[in-house]
Amino acid sequence: MSNDLATTMNALGRAAREGAKAIREAATDTKNMALNAAAAAIRTEKGAILAANGEDMAGAAANGLSSAMLDRLKLDDVRVEAMAKGLEEIAALPDPVGRELARWTRPNGLDIARVATPIGVIGIIYESRPNVTADAAGLCLKSGNAVILRGGSESAKSSAAILAALRTGLAAANLPAEIVQLVPTTDRAAVGLLLQGLNNSVDLIIPRGGKSLVARVQAEARVPVLAHLEGLCHTYVHSAADPEKARAIVVNAKMRRTGVCGSTETLLIDRGVDAALTVQILDDLKAKGCEIRGDDAIWKLYPAANPASEEDWRTEYLDAILSVKQVNGIEEAIAHIEQYGSHHTEAIVTEDALAAERFLEGVDSAIVLWNASTQFADGGEFGMGAEIGIGTGKMHARGPVGVEQLTIFKYAVRGNGQVRP
Amino acid sequence: MSNDLATTMNALGRAAREGAKAIREAATDTKNMALNAAAAAIRTEKGAILAANGEDMAGAAANGLSSAMLDRLKLDDVRVEAMAKGLEEIAALPDPVGRELARWTRPNGLDIARVATPIGVIGIIYESRPNVTADAAGLCLKSGNAVILRGGSESAKSSAAILAALRTGLAAANLPAEIVQLVPTTDRAAVGLLLQGLNNSVDLIIPRGGKSLVARVQAEARVPVLAHLEGLCHTYVHSAADPEKARAIVVNAKMRRTGVCGSTETLLIDRGVDAALTVQILDDLKAKGCEIRGDDAIWKLYPAANPASEEDWRTEYLDAILSVKQVNGIEEAIAHIEQYGSHHTEAIVTEDALAAERFLEGVDSAIVLWNASTQFADGGEFGMGAEIGIGTGKMHARGPVGVEQLTIFKYAVRGNGQVRP
Repeated sequence: MSNDLATTMNALGRAAREGAKAIREAATDTKNMALNAAAAAIRTEKGAILAANGEDMAGAAANGLSSAMLDRLKLDDVRVEAMAKGLEEIAALPDPVGRELARWTRPNGLDIARVATPIGVIGIIYESRPNVTADAAGLCLKSGNAVILRGGSESAKSSAAILAALRTGLAAANLPAEIVQLVPTTDRAAVGLLLQGLNNSVDLIIPRGGKSLVARVQAEARVPVLAHLEGLCHTYVHSAADPEKARAIVVNAKMRRTGVCGSTETLLIDRGVDAALTVQILDDLKAKGCEIRGDDAIWKLYPAANPASEEDWRTEYLDAILSVKQVNGIEEAIAHIEQYGSHHTEAIVTEDALAAERFLEGVDSAIVLWNASTQFADGGEFGMGAEIGIGTGKMHARGPVGVEQLTIFKYAVRGNGQVRP
Repeated sequence: MSNDLATTMNALGRAAREGAKAIREAATDTKNMALNAAAAAIRTEKGAILAANGEDMAGAAANGLSSAMLDRLKLDDVRVEAMAKGLEEIAALPDPVGRELARWTRPNGLDIARVATPIGVIGIIYESRPNVTADAAGLCLKSGNAVILRGGSESAKSSAAILAALRTGLAAANLPAEIVQLVPTTDRAAVGLLLQGLNNSVDLIIPRGGKSLVARVQAEARVPVLAHLEGLCHTYVHSAADPEKARAIVVNAKMRRTGVCGSTETLLIDRGVDAALTVQILDDLKAKGCEIRGDDAIWKLYPAANPASEEDWRTEYLDAILSVKQVNGIEEAIAHIEQYGSHHTEAIVTEDALAAERFLEGVDSAIVLWNASTQFADGGEFGMGAEIGIGTGKMHARGPVGVEQLTIFKYAVRGNGQVRP
C-alpha cells in the first residue's frame, strides 16, 4: 500500500471529522435547506449526471458486467428524479437530533435527560447502485453526521457527479463541503484503511451490499459495524390460517419482488394445513413462474416440486425459487427459523391469536409479522421515511435503519451544586 | 494454539447459545427467583468463596502483584455480602425484556410495536475484581442474556467459587446452568477465540478493565464490542460560577474517590474567574493532598503548582493529581475537551443558564453535567440500578450500561392479511 494512499485517506478522515463538528450542531432549517438545494442541483445537473453514468455504463459493459449489475448501475430520468425526490422527503422528516428520549429527577434533585445526538463520522461502503450516494448522504446529513462514501468502482463517475450536486446543496446552506466525502480512488486498499478507522476519524461503518462485502467488512473492521446481512425470510402457514389470506400473503411475500431482502425464501407449511390448500398455494406460486423445492412431505403432496436439499434451507435465492417444508406445529417452525434464518423478517399466517402471539414472541428476528407479507420489511412501509437498509445484528438498531437509528444519545444532567457523598 | 482449546471453547459457545434460548423467554419471576437464590447461595457458601479467594491471594502475592491489585482481588465478609445484596438489587429492578418502546398504526392498518428483547450471548472480559463475576452475571441474567465470563487469571479460583453459587441459583429456578459460563482456563489464547466469536456463538463483547485490555479487545474482536474506555473527565469553572458551588464541586469531582472513572482529571478555569477564587479552589485541593499541575497562567497565579506538560492533558491519573488550565471562554473549554477528552463525563459550574445550556449542547460526551460533580457518573446514581460500566462509544448505548442497555429490540407487526402493492 502506498504512503500516498494512506496520506490521502487520513486527510479525508480529518476533513470528515471537521465536517462532523459543523453538521452536529447545525439547525434543522439549515440541514433541510442543504437537502432541498441538493435535490434542486441534482435536477439542474441531470445532464452531467447522466453523461457520467453513460461513461460508467460503457466501462462496465466493456468489463463484461452481468445485465443485472448493469441494471443496478444504470441511471435515467426516472431514477435521477427519484434521487432528488428522496432528498426532499428526507428534508420533510422530523429532525432526529435533540429529541428528548427520557427525563427524570433523582431524589437529590439532579434532573437527568437522555437526548438524541449524532453519531459523528459514518463510513458507508456500497456496491454499484449510484443512487445510494444521494440516499446515504441525505440520511447522514439529516441525522447530523458527516459521511465517507465508498461506492463500487464501476459507478465512480456517477457518484462523483452526484457528490458535486450534494456539495452544491451544502454550499447553499453555508455548510462545509467536508460533511460529505467520497473516497477519491477505486483502489481496494482504501477500503482497508477506512475499515481501520483512519486514525479514529470514523465512528461507524455501514456496509450495504452482498454477502461477500459484508463478510469482508466484518472481518477487517476495527470500528463498530452496523451490519445489514442477507434476508433469509420465512413465511409460516399455521394450521388455523385463513385460506385466502394465506394464498395472498405467500404469493406476495415471494413474488412481488424476488430481489429484495424482505422476500420470503422458505415457506413453512404446518402439517395441520389442508392438503388442498397447500396444493392451491403452490399452484398459485407456480402460475407466477416460481420454482418449488420441497421436502419429502411436500414433494409427495405436490409432485411438480423439485426436491429440496439441506443447502436450500440456507439459501437466499433473491429469485423466483422457493424452498417449502412441512413442519409439525409452531415450535418446529420457530426452531427451523432459529436454525436456518438470518434474523431478518418472518411472518405467520393464522387466525389463532394465541399461536400468533407465540410466534411474535418466540421468533428472534428483527421483524416478525402476523398476517402480513414479509415484503413490508422496509423503512418507508414502517412510516420511518427513507432507510439505509434493514439491520440484522443485535446491537444499536434492528430492522429499518432510518434517520433516528443514525443517532445515539447523551445525558444532560442539571443540578444546583450537588456533590456525591 | 491447541485443537483441544478450540474444541473446549467452541463447546462452551454452543452451550451458551443453548442457555441464551432458555433465558431469553424466561418469566420475570423465574429470573428473579434465580437471582435471589444465587444471593442466598453466595451467603451460604461464603466460607468456600473466601477460602478460594485466599488461595488466589496467596498465588497473587507470590507472583508479586502490587498492593493495589491485591486490594482489588481481595474478598472479605463485607465484599461477599455486597455481592449477594447486589444480586438481590438486580432482582428488584423492573424486567427490561418485553417493554413496549414504541407503537403505532400505519394507514394500511398494520400495527407496529417496537419491543425490547435480549441480545443473546454476551462475553465479558474483566480483570482481577472477583465481584464482577456476580455483578455481570446478574445483569445479563436479568436482561435475558446468557453470559460467558472471562476474569483475570489471578482471580480464577474465586470466580469458580462464585460461579458455583450462581449456578445453584439457576438450578433453584429450574434454569439450565449453561446460562452462565466461565472460561475454564487461564490460557490467554482462549480470549482470542472468544473475541473471534466462537463460530457465531457470541453476540457482544464487553471489556471491563484498563486501557491495554480494551485496546486488545478492540483490535482483535470480530464481534460487536461495547467499549468502556477511560474517563478523562473535565470540570469547567465558568466566569459566572457561584464560588461555594465551585469549591465544593471541584473538590468532590477530583478527591471523593480518585480511582473511579468519573473522577475529574483536568480542571478548566475560565480567565474571567476571580484570581482569589482560583487560588481558593487550588488551596482546597492541596489541603486534601492533591498535586496540582498547571499551565503557565495557573502557575503564575499559584506558584505551588507544578508545570503541566502536553502529556498531562491526555492523562487519566486515577490518583490525587489534577491538571489545571486557564481557558478564554466557553468555546475554548469545549474545544479543549473535544481535543483531549475521552467523551465520558464533563461538568460546568456556572449560574449563567445560557452558558450552561451551551455547554450541555456543545460537549459531545456521554454525560454532561451542570453544577454537579462528575463523580455522579454511575448507574446507581442515575437510578438505573447496577451497571456494567460507563459506555464511551457512539453505538448502542452511552453512559451507564445497566439492564436496559443490555437489551435490543424487535418489531412485532400485527396485520389482517395485508400484502404490499
